[in-house]
This record gives sequence, structure tokens and C-alpha cells, in this order.
Amino acid sequence: MALMPIYHLKGVPKMDLDRLKGRSELEINRIADQVKVVVEDVRNRGDRAVVEYVKKFDRVDLKPQNLLVSLKEFDRASKTLAKPIKRCIEHAAENIQRFHQAQMPVSSWFTEVDKGILIGQITTPLSSVGLYVPGGRGSFPSTVLMSVIPAKIAGVEKLAICTPPRPDGRVDAAALYAADMLGVHEVFKVGGAQAIAAMAFGTETIPKVDKIVGPGGIWVSAAKRMILNYGNTGIDFIAGPSENLVLADDSANPRYVAADVLIEPEHGSDSAGVVVTTSRALAEKVQSEVEKFIGELPEKPINRRRFATDSIAKYGAIIVTENLDEAIDFVNSYSVEHLEIMTRAPLQTLMQIKNAGSIYLGDYSPCSVGCYACGANHILPTGTGARIFSGLSVRDFIKQIDYSYLSKQGLETINDTIRGLSEYEGFPQHGKAVRVRFE
Amino acid sequence: MALMPIYHLKGVPKMDLDRLKGRSELEINRIADQVKVVVEDVRNRGDRAVVEYVKKFDRVDLKPQNLLVSLKEFDRASKTLAKPIKRCIEHAAENIQRFHQAQMPVSSWFTEVDKGILIGQITTPLSSVGLYVPGGRGSFPSTVLMSVIPAKIAGVEKLAICTPPRPDGRVDAAALYAADMLGVHEVFKVGGAQAIAAMAFGTETIPKVDKIVGPGGIWVSAAKRMILNYGNTGIDFIAGPSENLVLADDSANPRYVAADVLIEPEHGSDSAGVVVTTSRALAEKVQSEVEKFIGELPEKPINRRRFATDSIAKYGAIIVTENLDEAIDFVNSYSVEHLEIMTRAPLQTLMQIKNAGSIYLGDYSPCSVGCYACGANHILPTGTGARIFSGLSVRDFIKQIDYSYLSKQGLETINDTIRGLSEYEGFPQHGKAVRVRFE
Repeated sequence: MALMPIYHLKGVPKMDLDRLKGRSELEINRIADQVKVVVEDVRNRGDRAVVEYVKKFDRVDLKPQNLLVSLKEFDRASKTLAKPIKRCIEHAAENIQRFHQAQMPVSSWFTEVDKGILIGQITTPLSSVGLYVPGGRGSFPSTVLMSVIPAKIAGVEKLAICTPPRPDGRVDAAALYAADMLGVHEVFKVGGAQAIAAMAFGTETIPKVDKIVGPGGIWVSAAKRMILNYGNTGIDFIAGPSENLVLADDSANPRYVAADVLIEPEHGSDSAGVVVTTSRALAEKVQSEVEKFIGELPEKPINRRRFATDSIAKYGAIIVTENLDEAIDFVNSYSVEHLEIMTRAPLQTLMQIKNAGSIYLGDYSPCSVGCYACGANHILPTGTGARIFSGLSVRDFIKQIDYSYLSKQGLETINDTIRGLSEYEGFPQHGKAVRVRFE
Repeated sequence: MALMPIYHLKGVPKMDLDRLKGRSELEINRIADQVKVVVEDVRNRGDRAVVEYVKKFDRVDLKPQNLLVSLKEFDRASKTLAKPIKRCIEHAAENIQRFHQAQMPVSSWFTEVDKGILIGQITTPLSSVGLYVPGGRGSFPSTVLMSVIPAKIAGVEKLAICTPPRPDGRVDAAALYAADMLGVHEVFKVGGAQAIAAMAFGTETIPKVDKIVGPGGIWVSAAKRMILNYGNTGIDFIAGPSENLVLADDSANPRYVAADVLIEPEHGSDSAGVVVTTSRALAEKVQSEVEKFIGELPEKPINRRRFATDSIAKYGAIIVTENLDEAIDFVNSYSVEHLEIMTRAPLQTLMQIKNAGSIYLGDYSPCSVGCYACGANHILPTGTGARIFSGLSVRDFIKQIDYSYLSKQGLETINDTIRGLSEYEGFPQHGKAVRVRFE
């Protein structure tokens, strides 16, 4: 049997369709109780709980005072990291910087809605943000860039990073190099649900932040959702496990489609990769190319071949539709994190897309360009979150506060309307506060 | 003893400071278990649970098929509503429309971050949004305007409103008139936690929506927080019970300050009203003016006098600071929903404000202008949520999706960087997807 099944959209068994569309949501729900224990424990016992979980999950025995990466460690990372990787990080940072700079709203604007009534907005940054940077199944200097750069453009003053330590107790050198380059030195060796809880509630060592952003696996995603219960910390959105979908018509190159649909599945067995196409012939070619690419994936040091195989078996499919409109409808209902469009007229297709985290157009835009270096953000809503949320941007780190300035004349203009509505709604003081100005 | 206590900032007992800053947060937490029962029940039993709770909490016995307001009822509302109130609603809508129209981002933009690398964003509306409109302790046609207008500007197609029925089983005529005027006819007679749960999960009658927005009391706020656990529905932020803070120096008119600080406390005993001032003399005058204004509040048909008295006793205070900087620091840490600034140079003070839901400047901008008619939104983050969230705006109803288009040359430009980073991070397929384009 082929690794990646081909379905006609109308013939997908409901059970399979539910699993495909639900992807890792069930896996996140399944661990909710375990995550709650960790979150509550960190909330109650602070650093003591944190170091216990770091020992349990990351097999590293740290004292609380060693959770914070030392300046010596930053120094060592900068000295040991190879020059070409430094250049890659700097190059990626330039593009990310340019795109995110363009997102920054004006610091203030107003409009005179009526004579003497000025209404506008001022932009202020969040005060403190915690950035989660994954580890374990890879290293993620790119994630440092994707979260720190927009936060810095927004003007956030206090930034803390949590990231799991490697078995040798160190944090990946490239991630430290990127943080150092961007001026963030509060980096803590904590990963998973314990990291999210630590930043939500604060511990003796790790600061409480106003908002936590960043991608992660099912533990991080479950923990981000859980801390919302306590009502004192915001999050960006659920960002992980990762997913991609390639929308292709018969003009697409099947080898590109196959190479691209495996980009996210190599992250882990809970990721997803789906192809939606109007062409049965393309579907069959993609199916066989996928097998070749999977066969070429390495099994060491991390078994990427196993991850991709499992992911495709659980949440992968090639779906054939009658026509492009039907394909686009499916794409909108699937609401994927990374969407590639390889159709004859990708810009025209783009205009019909309602829900996606980030979109990649044409033959030369595999979604891995956005994972690293083209400038787009790679911290994106997963699990249909793209129905509701935008990918990470400068907007996640600012607030735009309404302000109103009325002259006496302006207030007079709306006096009757406020009196009328406040009397009708039954709030006399609302009207009186206006009337005392005219006593 | 005076109704509204005066404190020097440095002398506020910690217990009082915690209560003042925490305001209704504790009351929301206290009912979490009860709200969970309602939410789970509506999730499991749908309409049957909804009608039971409507009967229990609103004392109205409705069949599921009567939850939806009929066209006849819209018609009747339009016929019975007094013309002057209609004009008030229309006037308010014009200003709200103008201000919110100015917030709408361009439908798409891009920047060429490097030769052949176009990165941009397209704007798409959310598909479906549920709007909560309170009732019970007042009527709220204004809230219909505040949520429907930005949603319509954003282009949201499916809008549903939930609002509690009055004891006669009807929905307030002005709220229906406003909804009708704006083209929203899915209005359901359900309030409280049951309304939030119904829109989050959907019932036989009430549609499941992607996001729920709108203000409410502690039941609505607790329910909005709770549904985030289930991970399938977004919310704006916690918006209620309401609060205001007046920041005043010795140039302020004490009568205006006193009139304004009672605007939100008349909503209910769980609301809050605080004055922060650099002037002890002003504080004392405000204290005595507050007593007068409270004495003038009506006790019928709703006991506004009792609400304001209780609210001020629990969460009200006049806080005197050494200087304006100290006052502004307090204001930023309090992160109030409605902030009034009555200082000599309000625009200068504005520039130092970091956290507030909506800001009102100068002598002629009592915050009730924003509750109704100046154009600013009145759906705002409460309970220190202004640290993280902006008030409701067009942005709550759209997503801005990143898109990337690379030419072959553009891809070539970043090929080495992607290869370098993907190898370093340990994701070979990420690099291979680029390389297959150059085979």
C-alpha cells in the first residue's frame, strides 16, 4: 500500500476526514490532565518544580541559579559557532527585519469625526513578553529571530526566552548567538509546559510576563491554552504541531509538490502534510515522489524518516477534487498553517483564500523559505486557528489605544444624543456627566 | 465616614491596594465552578439546556424555536420605538462608522525585501462572529452599534447576537432597531454564560461561531475565559465588569471629576471608579461632590444609587500622589478600561500612558461620550487586560495573512542561507525542497 493515500474529496470516509481535519487536536486534548499537573505545580512551587521537570523531561540536573544562561555561555556560543552559520542568521535577520518593519503602525493618528470631536489611536508596546523557543527534535535559532525581531520593532522592553537545554546542559549556540545579536540576554534553560507555566506565573528566577508567544509541540500548546484559565497572561495562539498543505493544479511540478508536502512532517509524527489537487495524474505522480523523498530522509541523528512516515500515515493525504473551486473550499475549511499555491494563476487563487497562516505562491516558494529567510514569520496558527488568528507580527506586541478629545462645542454636538441614549438605556450618571459641563 | 476614601499612594494598606487593583477578578474566579456547570451542560445538551437556563436566570419560558427573534418582533420594535431614540441611534452610528472605517487596513500590500522576494499581507475577514449584548441591569442598543459596525466594515458575513430577554420575553426595541438598521437578523434571546457556551459550541438553534466578542458581567466574563479551554473559538478579551479612572491635577474641575468617576460604578456593584490626583485639595472637593452625585442617583426602576455606593465602597478610592510621574506610574500599573486625563497638558500626559482601554482627554470628554456617540468603541479590556489587549476595533474581525512570492532568482538569493540553517537546525527536507528547484 502507498504511504500517502489518494482520495477523491467526495469519497473520503467521514472517519478519515475528521482525523485529517482534526490533526493533532486530539493529541493535545489527551495530555491536558498531565499538563495541568505540571502547570499547577510550577504555579505553587516555582523554581523547585521547574528544576524537577527539567530533570525529568530534559534529563538535565540544574540548580535554580543555573537556569539563566550566563554571559560566559553567550560568549562561548559566539566563539564556537561557525562563521557561515553566523552569516546565515544575519542574512535571515535582514529580510525578517525589513518585512516586519513595514508592519509597524504609526505611533498615533486621529480623525475629526465631527466638528470638535477628535478620535484616534495611539500605539504602545506591551511591557513584557516571554518567547518560547523549541528544542529537542531540532534546534531553532530561526525562532529566536521570528519572535525577537517583531517584539523589538514594537518596542517591548522586557523580553525573556525559555528554551529546553540539550543533554549536555547547554543551549544551542546559534540560538544564543541570535539572541545576543538582538540584545536579549534573559534566556532560561527550561522547555515544555513547565516553561509556559513559569513565564505565566513567574518563579523566583523566571519573570512573570504579560504575554507568551512562540511555537511548540503538544505540551507547549496544551500549556498555552491552560494558562488562559488563570486570566493574567495572554498568548499569541496555538502554534504547533506544524502543518502544511499544497494546493496544486495540473500545471504544478509533482516533484516540487512532493518535496514540499514533507517539509512540516519531518518535524515530528504529530505534524501534518496534505496535497489538494484538481489533477488525478498529478496526485499519482506526487504519491510516488513522496515515497522516494521519504526514503532519502536520514534516520540519524534524529529519525526524520520515521517522523515523516508516521505523520503522513496519520494526518497525510492527497485529495483530488472536481475543480479548483471545490479545492479552494476544502483549503478554506482545513485552515492550514502553511499553504502553498501552485496553480496556473496563483495570485488569482490567493484572492479566494480566506483562512491560512502563511501563503506561498508559485513554483519557487516552498514554505521552507518562510521557515528561515524570506522575511515572513514562521510562528503561525495551527489546528484551524487560522480561521481566527493572523500569524505572528508586530501587532502581537503592541496595543492601539483609542483616545477621544472633545472641545466644548464638540461635546455640545452630541449632548442630545448622549442624553437620549443614557436615559433610554437607564444610566442617568452617563448623561449627567455631560450636563454638568453646561451648568 | 466618607463614602469614597482618600489615600496617599504611599500609605495605601497592602490589603486595600490589592483589592483596588484586583477589582472584580476575585468575583469572576469565585463563580468559575458554577459557570463550568452551565458551559458543560449547554455543550452536552444544546437547546434543552439553554431554555432551562433562560427560564432559571431570566424567568422567561421559551421553546427552542422561539429563541430566535422573529421578523415580526423586529417590525414591532421599529414601529414602537420613539423617533428621537431612533435619531440618537443613527447619530451615534455615524460617528462610530467614521472612526472605525479609518481603522480598516488595505486589502493587500507587499514589500520587495530583496530582488525577487516579495513578502506581503492580505486582509481577510473572519467568517462568523457571535456578538454578546448585555441586558438585565439596563438596555444596550449602543453595544449593538459597537460590535456590529466594526464587524461589518471588516466584512464578516455571519453575525449572530445573543442578548437576554426581558421579563416579558421580548428583546429591547432599540437593540432590535439598531440590529435591523445594520442588517443583522440572527438575534437570540439568551444571555449570560449559557449564551457564550451556545455560540462557542453551537446548539440545534444557535450557530457555532469562530469568535465571540462583547461586554458582560462576571458570568459572561467567566464563560468567555472558560470556552478557551476547548480550543475551537476565539474571544476578544474579558470586557466587564466596567471600570474607570480619572487622572487629575489641581487644574481639574472637581465637579467634573466627581461626576465622571461615577459613570461606570452606576453599572453595578462589581464595577470600579478611581481618582488619582496630585492635589490633596482637589481630592477633598471630589470626595464631597461624589456624595452629592450619589445622593442624586435614582433608586428606581433600578437602584443605581445602591450600585454606585457599593461599587465605590469596594473598588473606589481617591489616591493622592506626590507628583504627576508617580500618578502616571500608578495609572499604568492599574491598566484601567476607561481613563480620563484632566491635567494642564493632557496630550503630554497621554504620551506617558502605556496601558488603558480607551482614553478621554481634557475638560469636555467625560468617558460617557465614548459609551455612546463620539465614535470610540466601548467594548474594552477590563481587569488589567489593557496591559495586553487593545479595545475592540476592526482588527478583531480580520486576519492579515502573510504571503510570499519568490522568483527563481529570488529563491537563488536565499538558497545558501536556507541550506545552512536547515542543515544546522537538522531539517534536511527544508533544504531539499529548495534544492529540487535547481536540479
